[in-house]
Amino acid sequence: MADLGSALRTVLDGPFASARDATREQLAATAVLTDPTLTLEEQRRQTREAVLALAKTGVPAAGFAEAHGGTGDIGASLVGFEMLVYADVSLMVKAGVQWGLFGGAVENLGTERHHATYLPRIIAGDLLGCFAMTETGHGSDVQSLETTATYDAATGELVIDSPTPTARKDYIGGAAHDATLAAVFAQLVTAGPGEEPQSRGVHCVLVPIRDEDGRDLPGVTTSDCGVKGGLNGVDNGRIVFDQVRVPRENLLDRYASVAEDGSYSSPIENPNRRFFTMLGTLIRGRVSIAGASGAAARQALAIAVRYALRRRQFGAPGAAEGDPTEVLLLDYRTHQRRLLPALARAYALQTAQNDLVATLARLQGGGTEPDPKEQRDLEALAAGIKAYASWQASATIQECREACGGAGYLAANRLTTLKADTDVFTTFEGDNTVLMQLVGKELLTGYADEVRGLDPVGMATFAVSNAAEVVLERTPVAPLVARLRDATRREGDEPDLLDRGTQLALLTDREEHLLDTLARRMQAARKASGPEAFAAFNRAQDHLVHLGRAHVERVVLESFVAAVGAVEDEEVRTMLDAVVDLFALSVVEEDKAWFLEHRRLSVGRAKNVTTSVNALCERLRPYAADLVDAFGIPENLLEVEVLA
Amino acid sequence: MADLGSALRTVLDGPFASARDATREQLAATAVLTDPTLTLEEQRRQTREAVLALAKTGVPAAGFAEAHGGTGDIGASLVGFEMLVYADVSLMVKAGVQWGLFGGAVENLGTERHHATYLPRIIAGDLLGCFAMTETGHGSDVQSLETTATYDAATGELVIDSPTPTARKDYIGGAAHDATLAAVFAQLVTAGPGEEPQSRGVHCVLVPIRDEDGRDLPGVTTSDCGVKGGLNGVDNGRIVFDQVRVPRENLLDRYASVAEDGSYSSPIENPNRRFFTMLGTLIRGRVSIAGASGAAARQALAIAVRYALRRRQFGAPGAAEGDPTEVLLLDYRTHQRRLLPALARAYALQTAQNDLVATLARLQGGGTEPDPKEQRDLEALAAGIKAYASWQASATIQECREACGGAGYLAANRLTTLKADTDVFTTFEGDNTVLMQLVGKELLTGYADEVRGLDPVGMATFAVSNAAEVVLERTPVAPLVARLRDATRREGDEPDLLDRGTQLALLTDREEHLLDTLARRMQAARKASGPEAFAAFNRAQDHLVHLGRAHVERVVLESFVAAVGAVEDEEVRTMLDAVVDLFALSVVEEDKAWFLEHRRLSVGRAKNVTTSVNALCERLRPYAADLVDAFGIPENLLEVEVLA
Repeated sequence: MADLGSALRTVLDGPFASARDATREQLAATAVLTDPTLTLEEQRRQTREAVLALAKTGVPAAGFAEAHGGTGDIGASLVGFEMLVYADVSLMVKAGVQWGLFGGAVENLGTERHHATYLPRIIAGDLLGCFAMTETGHGSDVQSLETTATYDAATGELVIDSPTPTARKDYIGGAAHDATLAAVFAQLVTAGPGEEPQSRGVHCVLVPIRDEDGRDLPGVTTSDCGVKGGLNGVDNGRIVFDQVRVPRENLLDRYASVAEDGSYSSPIENPNRRFFTMLGTLIRGRVSIAGASGAAARQALAIAVRYALRRRQFGAPGAAEGDPTEVLLLDYRTHQRRLLPALARAYALQTAQNDLVATLARLQGGGTEPDPKEQRDLEALAAGIKAYASWQASATIQECREACGGAGYLAANRLTTLKADTDVFTTFEGDNTVLMQLVGKELLTGYADEVRGLDPVGMATFAVSNAAEVVLERTPVAPLVARLRDATRREGDEPDLLDRGTQLALLTDREEHLLDTLARRMQAARKASGPEAFAAFNRAQDHLVHLGRAHVERVVLESFVAAVGAVEDEEVRTMLDAVVDLFALSVVEEDKAWFLEHRRLSVGRAKNVTTSVNALCERLRPYAADLVDAFGIPENLLEVEVLA
Repeated sequence: MADLGSALRTVLDGPFASARDATREQLAATAVLTDPTLTLEEQRRQTREAVLALAKTGVPAAGFAEAHGGTGDIGASLVGFEMLVYADVSLMVKAGVQWGLFGGAVENLGTERHHATYLPRIIAGDLLGCFAMTETGHGSDVQSLETTATYDAATGELVIDSPTPTARKDYIGGAAHDATLAAVFAQLVTAGPGEEPQSRGVHCVLVPIRDEDGRDLPGVTTSDCGVKGGLNGVDNGRIVFDQVRVPRENLLDRYASVAEDGSYSSPIENPNRRFFTMLGTLIRGRVSIAGASGAAARQALAIAVRYALRRRQFGAPGAAEGDPTEVLLLDYRTHQRRLLPALARAYALQTAQNDLVATLARLQGGGTEPDPKEQRDLEALAAGIKAYASWQASATIQECREACGGAGYLAANRLTTLKADTDVFTTFEGDNTVLMQLVGKELLTGYADEVRGLDPVGMATFAVSNAAEVVLERTPVAPLVARLRDATRREGDEPDLLDRGTQLALLTDREEHLLDTLARRMQAARKASGPEAFAAFNRAQDHLVHLGRAHVERVVLESFVAAVGAVEDEEVRTMLDAVVDLFALSVVEEDKAWFLEHRRLSVGRAKNVTTSVNALCERLRPYAADLVDAFGIPENLLEVEVLA
């Protein structure tokens, strides 16, 4: 196999090879691993300094349009941020707050005057801000935030207030210490001439919270969330507003504005759609967390796989008398099963992440409003991949920690820090359980649109069991994937599990079936009302989450198949095909009961799934070192005690 | 239901109600939650002081025989230690090192002179020690430790040495700072008159490592493992020995001794049996960790369930217009599924832990050598329950953390600290994957003994498929359990999943089948040699782990059924029966693919398992608060921010 390493790297880096290489160089030259012995204050100071240093690298600027003082390379910016995880997850998160969330809100929700006034200083790191959305009482349900921004036409000011204890802004990165300006999400209340004041829903207002000496401004009370389970380089805090006045111009008014006389106007009439449009522009945060999750999982795998290739324990049964050779951990089946399917997922997820970032860059980087349908699909996919990747990272890092035993528990070996720092990824930027339901609901909406669009005659001839297919087919799929899937789909009775078409068909059929049955269930539920309606919805919740997960796994497999299909070297491709097999079949194995219950797998084939996963682990064992080396994590960031 | 709380408490506390109540009082009066803002040094100092204070409570003394200066109540000692987890996991672990491992080694491996010389000071906390077993190169494979203890007949001394870098003692609690005496496990090398020096296998020797001022003694070099992923109140460290001389009398010589002339003798001839007998006396460490895992899971559940009963998010679909009431988290099905099956497991595991502790107290508390077969069964069960309970705790705490969202990530809310501090439970005191294999192997040995004991005629008529049953039947089972199980077993085709007998039969059949098929597989493997033998063993590894898990789940269910069967109040028993159902069926659900593949469940029944788990969650939802209150965790140790 000619240059296996670089061929693998090409698959993993996808369209962002040069941006990744540039970040690798930076990290190799300057980055150091988080020091677990630092105090809270020292960690925060170090992370703040690293954020300021990062401002000078050009990575943050890449995330902003050229017209706004950036360099307009969203993809490069996102992969650059993602890779910071290899050194310090706090740095990645604090940078994400400053440039992704806070800067992103100003760029995407604001208009020219906000861009001109703030963006150059935000990009340069001269103005540090925070993203004050979550409140003590409301996190997942952003539409019910309680903070108010009431327009006072007499002074032309917006009055920001926390009317209840639960309206307090909470867990806000930067609010404890560093941020001087906050992008505050609040219920906008205003009255046009002759109107009663009314709430217009959640909007975003820029509110200064600290003076240059770090003192709270009048009416603002900040406090500190203190020590967290991880990410202690980020100064999370709380903010309470007591009738704080800011000029009307501080409303970020791309999607809604308040005239001097208090009249409210918006280019988007439907308040619900307006709200989701505003939120949708902030998609980059979720994409970032998905990427960061992938990076953390890869680093943990690199450490655990390398350890398993050095560490020996117990002599082999049947070894010749006096043979002192002990067995390498990675030669044990249990150890292979712990690490290699997770490694296959890491590969699959990185190809899906590359596709996600590329789509985001295409839609947001064009300077025009993206197609609403494409934007919505992208949002659902970002939500799903964020949830899937962060749960996967949590499970993978945990497994890697345990696979390194006591050595894995020493902070010097990075695994516990990685676990602690990324643990909150499963619940921030959208709680995973809520996000997976969002994915399911979005598919359901697409389904309904499709069916609703048919005339009565069409409806009659439209087999309900095929409706889901229509929805899925709309998802753009690489021609290779479509060909493979369609070739095998529903053909024979017992097609080969190692056949790519079979794998694609298994995951596609599962998603279709889940969508079809959920749609019927929901149709029935729609007839209920009151407590019955809640009960019907509630009973379908697991179904919804399952659908979300099935959808993500199907899409990830398709990305992976397409990426591997593009590999030219046949030997490399053959090896990578085994990695795809391992991903696909370990996904099927995890949900095997479903496939059996729904007669997608016979008992015999179901057993073969497990046999095949085992065989694939053995087949890939010799390539384990190459597979993790290809991640291209700078070696200085893998210099942990356990590998010394 | 008359006094539900106290009825539940009775089931949970089992035979240790008064010991638990005494500890509850102590904790309520004096304990404070670990402070996550302390520095490493401060945490260590605080934990050391707490250990010294604990010495005065009588809990440590209870773990030692009256003849040795203790009060001889092993059960009280174990549950007392376990409950320390509610305040500070480091304290529980450091106390476990001092009295369970170090003190236990002196009591169980030593003889009268060691007892008289050391135990009073150990019990009083005047002599702090450490348990120096694990080395950098060998943890799971204790038989291959490299440290040597070579007898020098010329001086009557044992020479302790670390001949290689990997012979360094590693991760040893107390070795970094506090311990002055070490129980060192080393290969004993000695020669009787006219013999060549030879290794006699691993033995335990007491070696002073520090003077009173904390300085390393000559030839001893200690160092510090530094910050860990948790348990930072425990000063784990490393020890290297350079030809350190101690008197011959320092060998703990209950099972083997060296005469002045160097002759070696032991009451146990077989070296392998001798080694496992020595290790077996140290079983209390594993039982402690199993108990501590249970306590940690209970505390996490108490916090997460109470939070889910206060926290509301999103309005209910179908709610009347203007109804401001948001839905409690625990009313969501996804949330019930996250917490309530874990709660059922916590109940089941506590009843099994009570049985385990009671058996241990009976076998070790009698002052006589326990029956070898009973002792071996107990060891296997302790290994299995330790592995199961610690994995379960890890998963449960993680789920609880996520179920509390951002609030769960604040250290002040205890969940992240609990997770971090207990994380190593899955790999110390025996790596879980290795322990589960040990359980499987032990069952296999029992099976082989049983079959081997038959004469040829017996063998011929002994249906292989029934052999496992014989092994399982030997496990002592409460009469109620036997009656229930046998009543239903293999009777009808589709018995009710909520029938207790059906549940017992499902778990028993699974274990039997796994054992039967593994035995046959191993028989075939035994014919292989060299690399083939390893390959055959290796391919069965997952099977072995699965058997271990199936065994533990069956035993835990039996303990739980027996404990609930003893409840007198019918209403309370009916409610607890639903908890047993939820435990049993969630166990079946988790391994549903296996039951389907092995035709223990039809497709229809398999779907019913999930339906039943959902229905049981709904059924138990109203009792969730009572169920966690009954844990009896002192309220001062539940005063976390998120519940304030």
